[in-house]
Amino acid sequence: MRVSVVEQIMSANDQLAVANRACLDEAGVFAVNLMASPGAGKTTLITRTVEALRSRLRIGMVNGDLASTIDADRVAALGVPAVGINTGGVCHLDAAMLQSAFPQLSLVNLDVLLVENVGNLVCPAAFKLGVHRNVLIASVPEGDDKPYKYPSAYAGVDALVLNKTDVLSAFDFDMGYFRRGVQALNPGLALFPLSCKTGAGLEAWLDWLEGQVREFGNLSRN
Amino acid sequence: MRVSVVEQIMSANDQLAVANRACLDEAGVFAVNLMASPGAGKTTLITRTVEALRSRLRIGMVNGDLASTIDADRVAALGVPAVGINTGGVCHLDAAMLQSAFPQLSLVNLDVLLVENVGNLVCPAAFKLGVHRNVLIASVPEGDDKPYKYPSAYAGVDALVLNKTDVLSAFDFDMGYFRRGVQALNPGLALFPLSCKTGAGLEAWLDWLEGQVREFGNLSRN
Repeated sequence: MRVSVVEQIMSANDQLAVANRACLDEAGVFAVNLMASPGAGKTTLITRTVEALRSRLRIGMVNGDLASTIDADRVAALGVPAVGINTGGVCHLDAAMLQSAFPQLSLVNLDVLLVENVGNLVCPAAFKLGVHRNVLIASVPEGDDKPYKYPSAYAGVDALVLNKTDVLSAFDFDMGYFRRGVQALNPGLALFPLSCKTGAGLEAWLDWLEGQVREFGNLSRN
Repeated sequence: MRVSVVEQIMSANDQLAVANRACLDEAGVFAVNLMASPGAGKTTLITRTVEALRSRLRIGMVNGDLASTIDADRVAALGVPAVGINTGGVCHLDAAMLQSAFPQLSLVNLDVLLVENVGNLVCPAAFKLGVHRNVLIASVPEGDDKPYKYPSAYAGVDALVLNKTDVLSAFDFDMGYFRRGVQALNPGLALFPLSCKTGAGLEAWLDWLEGQVREFGNLSRN
């Protein structure tokens, strides 16, 4: 009984996710869902990404948060279209929440939509949003064992950022152990070790993201 | 409809939590639920706590994990009674999961039961377990804004540990801003800044915990 209710909720969410994708494709917008633990650096990575790519791509944002408007305020300062979604305590974004943001964005005037999920390494992975790519942001202080302990978060994504590499020397972080865990769950996954603080490694992430957006744009126009 | 099903689930959980508390009280065991984001240092704090107090208190453990047995293996090496609960992907411990561990522990032979929840700053706060105290473990790398962004996690706990103070100088962490956020949500909350790595600050946490256990023991015997 309980399982069947959960299945109904997931099925409804999946249908809305399909609708979201159709809406994004129609508008020609490449959407990316960014997931992470609390404090891994989602908002900071988005800020750096917008600053670097805004002259070449038209970027919009959706920022999910449990309660506050801290993230929404930070990204609003960037001056690109942004919608804050306060989930009212719900532990993830779902397809309906994302859909509710669309009317507040002029989608046809965007190339890429960055969706910042709620800080949570468990629940967001279970709710499809209808985006084109899912990205996980890990961070060095969380520890090298996280792929082994949170496999669902690592298994379903299309790219992995490892943030805060500037503090690698302050933590017992075995990069080989981390990489082996990632590869076992998600063979060939693109991994971008970087530091949003120093900027080291950011270029590879930006190149990947821009390449994905350009490829989508070319395919959409064909 | 969806809300009413959620209400039924929560009500059933609350009833089991009451039963858990009665069971713990009857056995004279003081139970503490430890919650945190992934990588904040739950298992390490538990390890340090067991090492420091095992000569004076009879300690048992329940360790919740999504998938692996990494934490259960780490604490098993301590040689005190421990039960690992693999939630199979579920994002929190609930009262029924905790109850399922009781028959595997000789409760009457314990003074304190340390319950390590799943790494998640959102969902565990919503599920009562029937324990005597709830403790949140924050960590410096997560950032000083977490009380503002995850208020439900901070509002409902009886003590707050701030781990990884050894790396304070490597992060932009404003202790005053953090404390103000905590105090607004949970006035007078006991806060223990410490480093599990260096041991700095651990003594205050251990004193508080042992004091709580002793006080419970005295009350139970009256």
